Amino acid sequence: MVQATALPRNETGIETALGILKQRFGEKFHTGQAIREQHGHTTTWIANQAPDGVVYPQDTAEVSEIVKICAEHKVPVIAFGTGTSLEGHINAPAGGISVDMSEMNKVLKVYAEDLQVVVQPGVTREDLNTHLRDQGLFFPIDPGANASLGGMTATRASGTNAVRYGTMKDNVIALEVVMADGSVIRTASRAKKSSAGYDLTRLMVGSEGTLGLITEITLRLQGIPEAISAARCSFPSVGDACKAAMMAIQYGLPIARIELLDALSVRAINTYSKLALPEEPLLLLEFHGSEAGVDEQTEMFRAIAQEVGGTGYETAANAEERNRLWKARHDAYWAIQTLRPGTQAFATDVCVPISRLAECVQASQQKLAELELLGPIAGHVGDGNFHSALLVDMDDAGERARAETFVGWLNDLAISMEGTCTGEHGIGQGKMPYLERELGAATAYMGAIKRAVDPDNIFNPGKIITV
Amino acid sequence: MVQATALPRNETGIETALGILKQRFGEKFHTGQAIREQHGHTTTWIANQAPDGVVYPQDTAEVSEIVKICAEHKVPVIAFGTGTSLEGHINAPAGGISVDMSEMNKVLKVYAEDLQVVVQPGVTREDLNTHLRDQGLFFPIDPGANASLGGMTATRASGTNAVRYGTMKDNVIALEVVMADGSVIRTASRAKKSSAGYDLTRLMVGSEGTLGLITEITLRLQGIPEAISAARCSFPSVGDACKAAMMAIQYGLPIARIELLDALSVRAINTYSKLALPEEPLLLLEFHGSEAGVDEQTEMFRAIAQEVGGTGYETAANAEERNRLWKARHDAYWAIQTLRPGTQAFATDVCVPISRLAECVQASQQKLAELELLGPIAGHVGDGNFHSALLVDMDDAGERARAETFVGWLNDLAISMEGTCTGEHGIGQGKMPYLERELGAATAYMGAIKRAVDPDNIFNPGKIITV
Repeated sequence: MVQATALPRNETGIETALGILKQRFGEKFHTGQAIREQHGHTTTWIANQAPDGVVYPQDTAEVSEIVKICAEHKVPVIAFGTGTSLEGHINAPAGGISVDMSEMNKVLKVYAEDLQVVVQPGVTREDLNTHLRDQGLFFPIDPGANASLGGMTATRASGTNAVRYGTMKDNVIALEVVMADGSVIRTASRAKKSSAGYDLTRLMVGSEGTLGLITEITLRLQGIPEAISAARCSFPSVGDACKAAMMAIQYGLPIARIELLDALSVRAINTYSKLALPEEPLLLLEFHGSEAGVDEQTEMFRAIAQEVGGTGYETAANAEERNRLWKARHDAYWAIQTLRPGTQAFATDVCVPISRLAECVQASQQKLAELELLGPIAGHVGDGNFHSALLVDMDDAGERARAETFVGWLNDLAISMEGTCTGEHGIGQGKMPYLERELGAATAYMGAIKRAVDPDNIFNPGKIITV
Repeated sequence: MVQATALPRNETGIETALGILKQRFGEKFHTGQAIREQHGHTTTWIANQAPDGVVYPQDTAEVSEIVKICAEHKVPVIAFGTGTSLEGHINAPAGGISVDMSEMNKVLKVYAEDLQVVVQPGVTREDLNTHLRDQGLFFPIDPGANASLGGMTATRASGTNAVRYGTMKDNVIALEVVMADGSVIRTASRAKKSSAGYDLTRLMVGSEGTLGLITEITLRLQGIPEAISAARCSFPSVGDACKAAMMAIQYGLPIARIELLDALSVRAINTYSKLALPEEPLLLLEFHGSEAGVDEQTEMFRAIAQEVGGTGYETAANAEERNRLWKARHDAYWAIQTLRPGTQAFATDVCVPISRLAECVQASQQKLAELELLGPIAGHVGDGNFHSALLVDMDDAGERARAETFVGWLNDLAISMEGTCTGEHGIGQGKMPYLERELGAATAYMGAIKRAVDPDNIFNPGKIITV
C-alpha cells in the first residue's frame, strides 16, 4: 500500500555517529536488530524501516548531546515515544538514530492552582492521570492508545474527549525543545494566554519530530468533574447517528464524548468485550459537569435522539458500568481485528465539517460495499472525525489494490468536502501525497520553515513534506 | 518612552512603487499627509511613523497585486485594520505602503450548521455580531475596541470573554493569506480539527502582518446561550478579588467573563458612565448557559466570593442592566483618561500564571504608589491578564522616566513569575526588547522563520523581531 520509500543514506556519517554514541552512551545505546526493528514502524501496513541505533537519554542535556553528535555528522534523528503512531512517523527511511524517550518519564511539577503540569516527553497519558488523581485533576486528551505525551504533542493527537476539551493544540501551554544545533529553547511562558511573537508552541505541536526534539511539556489540566455520566443510544442508520451528534453540537451541549460505532463495530466489541449491545449504529456519550448539569445534558440529548429516531437510550451513572462501556470503545481497534483474523488493519482518519459528516460516513459505507471491503467505522463524530478500520488480506493483491483505491477515494472525498485527510493521526509517511492535495501551495511554506529551522534535514527526514 | 526607531528607507523603490500604485489604483490610492498619518500609530505614546501611501484593496486579487508591486521594488507592506492596536504595529519605520482593509468588509459565508463563518479581514467584530444575531449565533472574542477581525487575528487578540471562549488562536479555523511573492495560500481546511502538517494557521495568528497579509478568515462561532446573567461583587483588596477569580477557575466554573477593576477604575467609570458602584476593588462577572446552569454558577460564585470577604454581590439578569454594566467596563479605557485630563494613557499588558496574579497586581499597586504614578488597573483576571493604564504627563520628563521604569519593572516581574509581557496586545514596536528577555533563544527561530517566509523583509519591518 503506501510504501515507505527509502532515502539516500549517509553511510560514513552514520558509521561515525554510531561509534561516538556507543562510546558515550554505553549500555543506553543499542544496535541489535530486534530493538532496532521495534523502533521502526510496527503498526498498520507501512513497511518497517529500522533505525541504525537506539539511544535512551535520561535528560535534556543528553538529548542535546545526541543531537549535536548527529548534527555534526549529518545523521537522521528520530524521536520515539511508545511506537503507537499509525502513519510511519518513526520509520528511518534514511537510517539514523532513534531517540527513545521512555526513560525521560518524570512528572516534573504539578501546578495545581494553575491547573498545569510539567512533564518529560516519555510520560504516558495513563501514568500522568494516575499521578494526578489524588489531586482531583486530570489530563483529558485520550487518543485510545496509552501513548506518550511527547508523541501525542508531536502528532497533534486528540481522541474521544476532544469535542469538549480540544486537541493537543489546545492543551499544550509551552514546550522545551532541542533544536537542530543542539540548543535548547522554551517556546512560551506558563501564562494562560500570550501575544508574545510567533506561536512556536503551536508550530511544534504536530510537527512530528521534524523541527526539534521535545524534551519538556507544560500541559493544561482540568478538575475532575463533580459528576460524570455515560449514555448509549442506537440509531436506524449511521446517518441518523451523525445527525444527532450534529444537533448536540449545534445546541451547544457541552458533551464530553460522543462516539459513533457502526453495526459492524458493535458486533465486534460485543464479541470481544462480552457485551450485548444492539447490533445497530450506536452513539456512546459522556457528560461532565455538576450533578444538575449532567442531568440536564442527559435529558437534552434524549430529546435530540428521539427527534432523529434513536432507540434504547440508556444511561450509566455508576463508574463501573461506565468504565466497562468505555473500555469496550477503547478496545474497538483490537475487537475489530478479530472480525477477520489474519488480516492487517489500517485506519483511515478523515475529518469533515460536521454538516457533511452524515453524507461522508454513508458514502464511505457504500463505497466499502461496492469495493467488497471490510471496514468497520468508529468515529469522534462531535468533531466530524471518523475512522474506517480496513481489514485487508495482505496476500491478496486485488484486495490490497481495492483498499488502496478506497483510502485515496475517501481522502479525496473529505478534501472535496472542505475537510482534511487526517483529523488526528498525522501525515507521517503515509499521507504525504494527500497533504499536498489538501493544502497545495501552503506546503511550500512548510518546506521553507523546515529548511530554515533544520537546514541539514536531520530531524525525521522523509515525513510530512519532501525537502 | 519606547521610541519607534526609524529604519533605512529604500527611496528609489518607494518612489517607483508609489508611481505604479497611483496609476493602477487611482482613487483607491492616497498619499496625502493627513491620511498617511492616520495610518501610522495614533494610540498611546509611541511616535507616529506614517507610511508613504495608503491603498484600499477590494479583494484578494488586488492585495496580491499590491504585494507583487511592492515585492518587486522591495517596499514595505503594512496591513491596516482599524488602527486600534497599542504597540505601534501599524507604524512605518522604513516607510512603505499601508494596505487598508476597511473595504474588504464582507461576511462571505455563514455555515450555521458548522458554527463557522468566513469573513474578509476588514469586517469588525461588532459588524459580524450584528450580521449573525438573527441566526442565534455570535463570535465571542471581544477586545473592547471595535477592531477588525483581520487585526484581531494578526495580534492574537482576546479580551473579556477569553476565559470561557479562548483567544483568536482558539477561534480561527483557517486563513487565506497573500504571501511575500504575491501567491495566495490557504492554511487549513474547514475541519474542526486536523493533524495535517505544520499549523500555519496558528503561525499566522499573532504574526502581526510580518509573514503575510490575511485576506480571508474562517472563524468558529458559538450559539447565543439560552441564558445570560451578569453579577458584580466588591472586595476588600485587589488581592482578595484575584483570589476569588482564581478559585472560580480552579472549581471549573465555566464563567464567561470575570473582570477586575481596582478602586480607582471604579471611581473613573462611576463618573464617566454615571454609575454609583462602591469605590472598592470590583469583580464584574458574566455567566452563560441554560437557565438552571446560570443560576447554579451564580450561586457557586456567591459562595466563593463570601469565602474571601466579597460584599454587595448583585446580579443583573435583565439585558438592559447587564449591558449598562458591560458598556461601562468597555468604556473604562476612556473613563480612566478623564481621571487626569491632558495626560497620555499607556496600557501595560502582563499575563501571569493565575497562582501569581494576586501578588503581581498588589506589587504593581505598591510600585505605582512608590513611583508616584497614576495607573488604574483593570484585568481579565480569569486568565491572569491585567492592564495598568498609566496616565502620564508627557511634558514632565521625570514622570515619563518613572513611567518607563514602571513598565520595565512590571514586564520583568511578570517574566520572573513565568508570565508574559503581553497577554493580548502583541509585541509591535513597543515590546521588542521584552520579547527577547521573555523567550531568549527562541526568538532566533522566529527570525529564521521570518527570513524563510519573507526573505526581503517586506512585510511590516521593524515589528516583533529584528531581522
